[in-house]
Amino acid sequence: MSIKQQVATQAKAARQAGRKLALLSTAIKNQALDAMAKALEDNKQQIIAANEQDVAAAKERDLSPALIDRLTLNAKRISGMAGALRELIALPDPVGEVIRMRRRPNGLQVGRMRVPLGVVGIIYESRPNVTADAAGLCLKSGNAVILRGGSEAIHSNTAIARILSRAASDAGIPQGAIGLIENTDRAAVNEMLKLEEYIDVIIPRGGESLIRMVVQNSLIPVIKHYKGVCHVYVDEDADLDMAENIAYNSKVQRPGVCNAMETLLVHQGVAEWFLPPLFEKLRAAGVEIRGCAATGKIVPGTLEATEDDWYAEYLDLILAVKVVSSMEQALEHIHKYGSGHSEAIVTSNYTTARRFIEQADASAVFVNASTRFNDGGELGLGAEIGISTQKLHARGPMGLEELTCTKFVVYGDGQIRE
Amino acid sequence: MSIKQQVATQAKAARQAGRKLALLSTAIKNQALDAMAKALEDNKQQIIAANEQDVAAAKERDLSPALIDRLTLNAKRISGMAGALRELIALPDPVGEVIRMRRRPNGLQVGRMRVPLGVVGIIYESRPNVTADAAGLCLKSGNAVILRGGSEAIHSNTAIARILSRAASDAGIPQGAIGLIENTDRAAVNEMLKLEEYIDVIIPRGGESLIRMVVQNSLIPVIKHYKGVCHVYVDEDADLDMAENIAYNSKVQRPGVCNAMETLLVHQGVAEWFLPPLFEKLRAAGVEIRGCAATGKIVPGTLEATEDDWYAEYLDLILAVKVVSSMEQALEHIHKYGSGHSEAIVTSNYTTARRFIEQADASAVFVNASTRFNDGGELGLGAEIGISTQKLHARGPMGLEELTCTKFVVYGDGQIRE
Repeated sequence: MSIKQQVATQAKAARQAGRKLALLSTAIKNQALDAMAKALEDNKQQIIAANEQDVAAAKERDLSPALIDRLTLNAKRISGMAGALRELIALPDPVGEVIRMRRRPNGLQVGRMRVPLGVVGIIYESRPNVTADAAGLCLKSGNAVILRGGSEAIHSNTAIARILSRAASDAGIPQGAIGLIENTDRAAVNEMLKLEEYIDVIIPRGGESLIRMVVQNSLIPVIKHYKGVCHVYVDEDADLDMAENIAYNSKVQRPGVCNAMETLLVHQGVAEWFLPPLFEKLRAAGVEIRGCAATGKIVPGTLEATEDDWYAEYLDLILAVKVVSSMEQALEHIHKYGSGHSEAIVTSNYTTARRFIEQADASAVFVNASTRFNDGGELGLGAEIGISTQKLHARGPMGLEELTCTKFVVYGDGQIRE
Repeated sequence: MSIKQQVATQAKAARQAGRKLALLSTAIKNQALDAMAKALEDNKQQIIAANEQDVAAAKERDLSPALIDRLTLNAKRISGMAGALRELIALPDPVGEVIRMRRRPNGLQVGRMRVPLGVVGIIYESRPNVTADAAGLCLKSGNAVILRGGSEAIHSNTAIARILSRAASDAGIPQGAIGLIENTDRAAVNEMLKLEEYIDVIIPRGGESLIRMVVQNSLIPVIKHYKGVCHVYVDEDADLDMAENIAYNSKVQRPGVCNAMETLLVHQGVAEWFLPPLFEKLRAAGVEIRGCAATGKIVPGTLEATEDDWYAEYLDLILAVKVVSSMEQALEHIHKYGSGHSEAIVTSNYTTARRFIEQADASAVFVNASTRFNDGGELGLGAEIGISTQKLHARGPMGLEELTCTKFVVYGDGQIRE
């Protein structure tokens, strides 16, 4: 079979499985999630053995320690994957909910019923836990899933997907509902992206170049986020202790993730008092600071930021700092350099807070809270399959509900159109 | 300026206008809609003169009478366009609504605020009224719009867009909020489809080939529907008088539109009684019928349907008819040949109705009502910018709310992540 046929056969099977899966009861889906969690735990050794092959190959190819860490599975991480599947059991099933049911003047009853998207394609890199997370979220929301992980994790992903798929089908889930494309040829991704007949949405998870490749080649709608250049703006009316805590937390608590702060904007009216103690604290945590000219005047010796710094997603203990003359200037900076991910203001001024909330254009806007809260669990979605910084369909963290769509349902008594 | 620069300049202006437009009050937007309606009426003669140029060119190019009819504007149609703008005034402004605001365990208040998409690109053919409809819907929902009509309507579209844009900006709407790409070169569309930095969504309206071209070339998310192959299934438990009315209405009331029935499915248990009188009525209305073998046995002399007929969107007084042995067979037929647009069942059986509603996979599913109700006005949206048969973002008719997205808004008191 050609790569094209392989991928199409699998996608077609997913489409057929998706049709049946969409109609399964919540009880059966929950039983399957439980069985899948148990299967991961029961087959820990097999998964670890497969993972060791991937890790050995990664070391041979001299991949970075950070990447190898993300790739590595151990008993604790496998328990974590199983735990995440079990947590889905307690979440409400979004499928079948009817919203906004209203009666029309002619007596028609019109509502919107939440239904699964159908078949979800996930294209991801390195982290093998995505295999289990995505399979669980798609199953609970009634979707079939086609997984396409990176070649560096192929043994781990294959082991996990086969174990999950078998456990699910033993628990009454249709065959083909959880599929992994085991062919690591790049061409397989390109074929996958053309199958708009069988796949309803593609969610890429990985670096910006992977995501751009997917967007450029896909005929299927894509939900994506390129990167997170997140800002905290400390207003002239900020509680400076609160601002220090929020800025420190947004930068330092976990610098390698997309909702960490990359640039701090500070109102000129408070910069002189605010920056020196903050910088001391940040530097003690190992943060390198790159500031605008005004910053350098307030804290002499600060490295000078270049234009590139304002665009940078460091994902590291580096922070760009800019002093601004007003909230408007802060918003201009955010609109020019930001990525529409997470934006926060610290202020005690009611009007300023309201204006920032309205005007900042991002997937999540915070008043007096850390950008690190832009996360499915923290915002109350229970679990997330990714985050979207685009505007269509879903914006911000995507949970079970974002893996569904609605269809109009209309109940009549013989109405015809005049 | 190259075509690329022209289009990019316009899109950039739209992005800037969109930012301001997103923050305008409902009152100002409504005043602008009123001014735009008045401007269309005040400049009727100018629009008609421009339209006459398009119609003359169309006749010279021997375009079909149907196409020329769609292209033609007269005083009544221009009043209709103005009326549609005024109707938008009464509709609720979706912008600013906050939904599902809830308190998290740590005290954060988390909600989702409805905000405009930003810049909407509309690519359309022949009907110049789309220029006014789309401009009005986008304005009311706080979006800037970039219109790209077909070359056959360029004089009409240019006149309308300039009149509307001037009236809007006189009423306080930012310059650039209503833009028409006046360059009719096909290359302009291709440039437009690459500007993901400035345009948030593309809505193509026209024939299937236009829409496929847009999907294949766009880096910007597209909301679309390819075609409407809609079915009415008459169940064995149907009230046959009601079924006859619904089938007749779905086919005949306006056969040239996407929510008209193209294939009638009839349960074998009632076909013998149901089909002969229906066919008589349909034939009296000029409908050509193409039936399956069983249909031919019940009504001898019926033209035989071929495989192609089941896929056909006739948009004409032609109907394919198939006798099926069960609702399951009807659903199989719908899933195989349907386009996910509108599907109706006529039945008096509670269980059958419930199963059809759950299992039919379409933008709108009807019980005991005509497929012709799949329309923004009829389903209660007030007005529509198009219909979507895809699953992402919007499915079914799209009104003002579907021209918005949400962003998470989070109110804290200094919360940081542990």
